[in-house]
Amino acid sequence: MESKRRKGILERLNAGEVVVGDGGYVLQLERRGYVKAGHWTPEAAVEHPEAVRQLHREFLRAGANVLQTFTFYCSEDKLEISGNVTSITGAQINEAACDLAREVANEGDALVAGCVSKTPCYVKSRNETEVKAIFKKQMDDFLKKDIDFFIVEFVDHVEEAVWAVEVLKTSGKTVGATLCISPQGDMQGVPPGECAVRLVKAGADIVGINCHLDPLTCVRTVKLMKEGLEKAGLKAHLMIQPLGFHTPECNFGGYTSLPEYPFALETRAMTRWDIHKYAREAYNAGIRYIGGCCGFEPYHIRAIAEELSAERASLPPASEKHGLWGAALEMHTKPWVRARARREYWENLLPASGRPKCPSMATPADDYEKQLASKILT
Amino acid sequence: MESKRRKGILERLNAGEVVVGDGGYVLQLERRGYVKAGHWTPEAAVEHPEAVRQLHREFLRAGANVLQTFTFYCSEDKLEISGNVTSITGAQINEAACDLAREVANEGDALVAGCVSKTPCYVKSRNETEVKAIFKKQMDDFLKKDIDFFIVEFVDHVEEAVWAVEVLKTSGKTVGATLCISPQGDMQGVPPGECAVRLVKAGADIVGINCHLDPLTCVRTVKLMKEGLEKAGLKAHLMIQPLGFHTPECNFGGYTSLPEYPFALETRAMTRWDIHKYAREAYNAGIRYIGGCCGFEPYHIRAIAEELSAERASLPPASEKHGLWGAALEMHTKPWVRARARREYWENLLPASGRPKCPSMATPADDYEKQLASKILT
Amino acid sequence: MESKRRKGILERLNAGEVVVGDGGYVLQLERRGYVKAGHWTPEAAVEHPEAVRQLHREFLRAGANVLQTFTFYCSEDKLEISGNVTSITGAQINEAACDLAREVANEGDALVAGCVSKTPCYVKSRNETEVKAIFKKQMDDFLKKDIDFFIVEFVDHVEEAVWAVEVLKTSGKTVGATLCISPQGDMQGVPPGECAVRLVKAGADIVGINCHLDPLTCVRTVKLMKEGLEKAGLKAHLMIQPLGFHTPECNFGGYTSLPEYPFALETRAMTRWDIHKYAREAYNAGIRYIGGCCGFEPYHIRAIAEELSAERASLPPASEKHGLWGAALEMHTKPWVRARARREYWENLLPASGRPKCPSMATPADDYEKQLASKILT
Amino acid sequence: MESKRRKGILERLNAGEVVVGDGGYVLQLERRGYVKAGHWTPEAAVEHPEAVRQLHREFLRAGANVLQTFTFYCSEDKLEISGNVTSITGAQINEAACDLAREVANEGDALVAGCVSKTPCYVKSRNETEVKAIFKKQMDDFLKKDIDFFIVEFVDHVEEAVWAVEVLKTSGKTVGATLCISPQGDMQGVPPGECAVRLVKAGADIVGINCHLDPLTCVRTVKLMKEGLEKAGLKAHLMIQPLGFHTPECNFGGYTSLPEYPFALETRAMTRWDIHKYAREAYNAGIRYIGGCCGFEPYHIRAIAEELSAERASLPPASEKHGLWGAALEMHTKPWVRARARREYWENLLPASGRPKCPSMATPADDYEKQLASKILT
Repeated sequence: MESKRRKGILERLNAGEVVVGDGGYVLQLERRGYVKAGHWTPEAAVEHPEAVRQLHREFLRAGANVLQTFTFYCSEDKLEISGNVTSITGAQINEAACDLAREVANEGDALVAGCVSKTPCYVKSRNETEVKAIFKKQMDDFLKKDIDFFIVEFVDHVEEAVWAVEVLKTSGKTVGATLCISPQGDMQGVPPGECAVRLVKAGADIVGINCHLDPLTCVRTVKLMKEGLEKAGLKAHLMIQPLGFHTPECNFGGYTSLPEYPFALETRAMTRWDIHKYAREAYNAGIRYIGGCCGFEPYHIRAIAEELSAERASLPPASEKHGLWGAALEMHTKPWVRARARREYWENLLPASGRPKCPSMATPADDYEKQLASKILT
Repeated sequence: MESKRRKGILERLNAGEVVVGDGGYVLQLERRGYVKAGHWTPEAAVEHPEAVRQLHREFLRAGANVLQTFTFYCSEDKLEISGNVTSITGAQINEAACDLAREVANEGDALVAGCVSKTPCYVKSRNETEVKAIFKKQMDDFLKKDIDFFIVEFVDHVEEAVWAVEVLKTSGKTVGATLCISPQGDMQGVPPGECAVRLVKAGADIVGINCHLDPLTCVRTVKLMKEGLEKAGLKAHLMIQPLGFHTPECNFGGYTSLPEYPFALETRAMTRWDIHKYAREAYNAGIRYIGGCCGFEPYHIRAIAEELSAERASLPPASEKHGLWGAALEMHTKPWVRARARREYWENLLPASGRPKCPSMATPADDYEKQLASKILT
Repeated sequence: MESKRRKGILERLNAGEVVVGDGGYVLQLERRGYVKAGHWTPEAAVEHPEAVRQLHREFLRAGANVLQTFTFYCSEDKLEISGNVTSITGAQINEAACDLAREVANEGDALVAGCVSKTPCYVKSRNETEVKAIFKKQMDDFLKKDIDFFIVEFVDHVEEAVWAVEVLKTSGKTVGATLCISPQGDMQGVPPGECAVRLVKAGADIVGINCHLDPLTCVRTVKLMKEGLEKAGLKAHLMIQPLGFHTPECNFGGYTSLPEYPFALETRAMTRWDIHKYAREAYNAGIRYIGGCCGFEPYHIRAIAEELSAERASLPPASEKHGLWGAALEMHTKPWVRARARREYWENLLPASGRPKCPSMATPADDYEKQLASKILT
Repeated sequence: MESKRRKGILERLNAGEVVVGDGGYVLQLERRGYVKAGHWTPEAAVEHPEAVRQLHREFLRAGANVLQTFTFYCSEDKLEISGNVTSITGAQINEAACDLAREVANEGDALVAGCVSKTPCYVKSRNETEVKAIFKKQMDDFLKKDIDFFIVEFVDHVEEAVWAVEVLKTSGKTVGATLCISPQGDMQGVPPGECAVRLVKAGADIVGINCHLDPLTCVRTVKLMKEGLEKAGLKAHLMIQPLGFHTPECNFGGYTSLPEYPFALETRAMTRWDIHKYAREAYNAGIRYIGGCCGFEPYHIRAIAEELSAERASLPPASEKHGLWGAALEMHTKPWVRARARREYWENLLPASGRPKCPSMATPADDYEKQLASKILT
């Protein structure tokens, strides 16, 4: 089988390669008309495979070395609660999603990661057996298909992530685990360094951060994880898949606490130049699996690949349609636009919002913090 | 043939129907990795038909009643100058683009508009015969295929638009014409009202504005066109396909004069709620063909369709994945996000940019104005 | 008597001299604790002469060639309505204010202008006889004292200003008249050019604009006055005393329509460098009496005098304590502050607000516009 | 003598009274034309006593219970280096300043604090004997006059402040000491808690923070001082005299690191409502000597007194000219301004800057941090 001949994720990371991750599916497919905000469930894998396939393809073309299965929130308990998906089973979605990712990955040199995310069951029950049963069921769906490794993502209690890792490791496959937490730690106040230690001890081969906060904040959190591992004498690869939005105000709660979430985040979107800076920072921090989450569109992934093209000794296919640092503007009909065909211009530009009645920063809801505070006390 | 049974564009407009247009192809396909900024040519119709097909489909699903062929800047002279496309002919692109639009339009109730845009030849030669020959050649490509009507778009000299209309009207088909001009008038200072008069006299059935400026500014310009027609005792349908960006600073030059063009426009992007306001304003101004241009993604088109759902007596397919005015947030796990499931919240929100070092407004390049001033003198 | 030997205001203006005006008294004395916002009456001239005297002195020291009597809103009818001043008569204030201005003016080479402003009587009665009687009474107070000329200021109906000019001209003294109107015209829609014509025909020797709008807007309005006079073949000197605040959003209503009026205007305050630009623009527009109104503190007046020091062939006394364009920062202990001791630095700086949750622009109340609209109709 | 009958500063603080401090002299007198930026020396006490007297009076009238002598940077070594003052001695300034403060303090119930600030000698020599000799000389000037207590202020090395306290305590008078440091600590990295401990051990009766950072940041720093004292089992009164500017970006270096310092700080100025919030926070933190520094004008001091009028059981004289929370706007002629005569309006207003091309936050110079970093290493 085609994918067998590919280098595995650990083989790549152990060799010091930079692995470019893919971007965010749910927000982008919401904008394209296939995902329902509020529910955020991935039934499009069954209902509209062409839309999911096309987005996979765009990320691949932008340079992604890994395609994550579009299986976000696809545990049976979550689907049931959400109520958005009634005539399709979770197993059907999981299996369709694996096929879609595999099909597109095989068009290039990419790997497929089967993804599980946090379950409503955990918060409700805190029951290890129940939660693990849910992860096991989803894992079994994946194992019927041809996936390369697993990623646990978007979990904000390290305990739940540890349980997921423990289940997935029973498959014998490589497991990566990313928490959606801030530098302050997980939802119970466990600091990032300690979170990383617990995940690695549970068997995670790659650890890091995804979603909830902006790229530079997430780099800081991964650094704290790295320091925690070093202090504990442990080793693991590091990965990062942050938001594609500026969220300087956020603390624990991340971007769901912002007034703009989820339908007015446009002004916070990263430019491709913001991503160049992020990719360099992540690389300098020692992170070698570098991708994105909500808000990362294909051109953001391409910007990672372009910033690290020397380190990766290649440019992605989509760079055929992109002059590095704006070089293709040399062709523009207007002389003042041609003058923008250079790195210094874009690197130093502070983009105006065109919204003179809008502020720069918002007051995030602090319900999350309050919730957290009361949880720590109890 | 399927499309024969559809009501034509004039039939719909004459009946008082609201026609929802599609959104912007070039900027969106640039972000997806298929169009090269600076060149902006549509070779993807041949090279990557799946990407163009998918974007057509998303606009259809969002409620578009018309799909424009992806033939922007696809005159032979432009392709040659651009130098981006060498092994594919303009005719190949034009024909492939017609097939793609037709294929997807037939999945719904949509019409196909064959689109021509401004030619480098006009600015260089000002020679009517030469310019008309170019439009004629492109028209002939279209006429080999099954298109419903023509649109002349993205022209900033009314004279060139008039020539295009005159050519296209020889086909016997309906012709719409949109200029990319500001309320100050075209590049030679012809005011919008006078532009409209000339276009209608040349044979245009539908006139209006596209691209270059933000929605509310474009509504103002179309109103001026309407007033001009009324004063001249002429009649025509009105259409509008503005930018999906806030550009309050721009004058003649439009958004290409902004420092953020074209790679840092993110912060200026319209939210879906901005679009609701725009759709209502356009409707109130008597415009009945309402769509978007650069910056309009599928969810923006859906917002037009949702705002005017009562007038259109229907919701688009993609509204299955969208609670009106955020209603689906009722399902969100966080109580403070659930509190946002209401119209008042989104209608009144002033979104923060998350960029405290960025200003609200920029100083546009004034080269355009200077160019214009000197042209008027000569 | 000392002041007799001074060159009169017309003598100076006729000789082409630049006359620097003083700044705003009521807002500054409000901040110093002597004027009550909402009432804005000048009883401090009697109650706290030391405070008024000191502010006069600071304006003189900053370069002012004219000191206006602190007699704002000091007509009997206004004092009565205001209810803030009960044990002091208007005549007492007017006379005390004349003495204070004279005393300080005599410390330098300055002239004293007796000032009258709009009366509640006008809006209530529109009765020429009644309104003129009020102006006559105030003029008689002034004529008991040693003043050099009159200024009618802060009137937003040109008709009332004309009546005031007609009264004051009976004194045989020079009369200047400034309206607090926008480029759109006075409160009844009379355009600035026409306003200027009426004022000059009534006898005004100097005409212009004061208060209500920011400097560059007021320069525009004075230019319109100038054009009106030229078209009518009339001649008059031009004067300007604008707000010391940025008010880009304002229309007719001026800054009282802004949400920040009057207790949160800090962020809108002009820097000294904004004033340099204003002084140059005003000079270039042909205005030769250049001062300020609300928001102009002594250092703003000094900035006018410093910008026009070559034209005036002198620097004001207070420039002993000010390095031009920041030159005195050369002495600062910190090297990075020393680097700011140059014109280019300050001229190009875009100052940050330090308020990340505040917007750049506000929505002004439109009550004024509505009022105006209905008045035009009636 | 009049002042003998007054309650001393410790008597007041020991009784739990709130003592309102005065505001900033140098920046305000710079704007009034009497202090030269860059030098910041207080020769105006001799050259223009009327200007200093008037500002003292305004602070007294606004509610200040203490008037600080206008003796900033008035050590002989500083005056010599500055080069701004040549024909006047430091002793002359110190003595004149004491007389001015005394004269005005006696018009009310205020105390006079003789103030010393950091010396160039300290940074240059680090020689205890030399530095103490300078403080001793300045103290001896003060002791010839009638002052009530001493304040050491604007020192950023706690070691220098300790030396000053040790000298001043030899007078037998009460000594307060405020550092101009951030929550990160003094210029050698000594944390605020430890700074407070050293100052109290040296004999300071009152400790706290002044200048350099915005009110809420300074409250945080004083809280850290308080915690340090509590941990050490020490007791002292707390005082605070912060900047009247918003400086959210600043770290160690404080506002001199901001690009706007010192000539474009207008947009950062506190409103009176910002001060209400600050006064409450300071009070809630247990601070009982609450005043201001650079940027605090008389109306800001009045706002402290008004916010704490219940606790102080009185309103200051200047409140005769101020409706609490905008109440006097009830009298305004415009209905929409009258609608602002209420606390909720002003408390919740986010003031717009009127500057759409200016950002919210700046990048502070980091030279200070670098200096600090290298100093810690050496």
